[in-house]
Amino acid sequence: MISKSQISFIKSLQLKKFRKAHNHFIVEGIKSITEFYEEDYTLHSIYYLPEISSKVDNFLRNIKGFEVSSDELNKISALSNPQDILAVFKIPEYDIRIEDMAGKYALALDGVQDPGNLGTIIRTADWFGIDTLICSKDTADIYNPKVVQASMGSLSRMKIKYCGLDSFLSQYPYAIYGAVLEGDSLYESEFDKEGIVILGNEGHGISDEVRRHVSKTIMIPRFGRAESLNVAISAAIICSELNRKMKKA
Amino acid sequence: MISKSQISFIKSLQLKKFRKAHNHFIVEGIKSITEFYEEDYTLHSIYYLPEISSKVDNFLRNIKGFEVSSDELNKISALSNPQDILAVFKIPEYDIRIEDMAGKYALALDGVQDPGNLGTIIRTADWFGIDTLICSKDTADIYNPKVVQASMGSLSRMKIKYCGLDSFLSQYPYAIYGAVLEGDSLYESEFDKEGIVILGNEGHGISDEVRRHVSKTIMIPRFGRAESLNVAISAAIICSELNRKMKKA
Repeated sequence: MISKSQISFIKSLQLKKFRKAHNHFIVEGIKSITEFYEEDYTLHSIYYLPEISSKVDNFLRNIKGFEVSSDELNKISALSNPQDILAVFKIPEYDIRIEDMAGKYALALDGVQDPGNLGTIIRTADWFGIDTLICSKDTADIYNPKVVQASMGSLSRMKIKYCGLDSFLSQYPYAIYGAVLEGDSLYESEFDKEGIVILGNEGHGISDEVRRHVSKTIMIPRFGRAESLNVAISAAIICSELNRKMKKA
Repeated sequence: MISKSQISFIKSLQLKKFRKAHNHFIVEGIKSITEFYEEDYTLHSIYYLPEISSKVDNFLRNIKGFEVSSDELNKISALSNPQDILAVFKIPEYDIRIEDMAGKYALALDGVQDPGNLGTIIRTADWFGIDTLICSKDTADIYNPKVVQASMGSLSRMKIKYCGLDSFLSQYPYAIYGAVLEGDSLYESEFDKEGIVILGNEGHGISDEVRRHVSKTIMIPRFGRAESLNVAISAAIICSELNRKMKKA
């Protein structure tokens, strides 16, 4: 049983302005919740159906858990088909310094709008061992429940910074690759041992002010007739090729 | 101005059973509609806002077009933010014969459920010049408006067959590759000059009865910690690698 004010608090976290105001976000499903918990995200509260109460003991050492009915879970969930548990976590502060970016790759997103794309990019980056994501201020919010959902727990392992990409990139000392529709073939591109790959907005690509920082453009060779690729697909193909080449090196 | 029965007919096409019954599907947006039209799909009718009437003349040679209000378009559209035009096309009959599959690659989908994934796979396949898609009967319907939307017009260039994959593959004479979580590294795999790549269901992967036809398993090497990749992402990475190797060969 949970109170109206709890319901109202949790539901408010579906909106960015309330996530900012309260500094918390929601995660659904025992698997994802466990991953955030194990990565030392601060748990605020959990809400679960009685049938899985045996699985939540682990979380209840420092915080209070609430058994809820299916109806209550439906009210607080952001999913159309809620799972059996929902948790509220505190939004962490990430410390990303340029000196920590040496010797590895990061992704930069310039205005990616679709939460599903953003979540899929995070999941894919995590698969390929990339743990740093720099987002322009107009990129979708990573704590949007749809992003959290699509990232399948991988968000818990990612360090993320929102900033003006223009000013960030002007201080970034390593190679800056930009994914574009016309550039050098990905397959024939050489990659430095460290760098950042920029992916642009779904409709407009990389903005002019960001593009002027790009030291090398990358294009995924086209063999058929589609006009463009989905941004998460482009990110994945580039990450794969990058890792293929890094591993060989 | 359109009639209630027209509205009811068009709306019914959002559901698979009515698409089957009426043998028609909907496409939204002038760009996609033009692509289906140019690929000789049979246009049944179009519905558009007055402000774009100058762009639709081309379509009106053989069929009747209907100017509609925004309210009417909202009623018939499957999108939460409708574009300015919607068309109804006839579902074509594809003739895919095994002898036509020589010398090229096709994709097979074994129970892919999410319409967004299916549409993205079609768009990606089209980018890489793959034009044949074999779907198990429990794969999502390609004429679902969400699939049509996510394919961004690429569906118009794809030949698609729904069938029992088990029996189809038992007659397929070329190499059969299966995307799995544990198999041979994609990067080190050799590919024949023709073949089919099977992608499995989002949760369960390739089913046992289909898997026994696989002549070579393919795994995308993991460098990080995500448990799995989205199926459209896996499809894209494999198609990219396949084309990279084919082109070199």
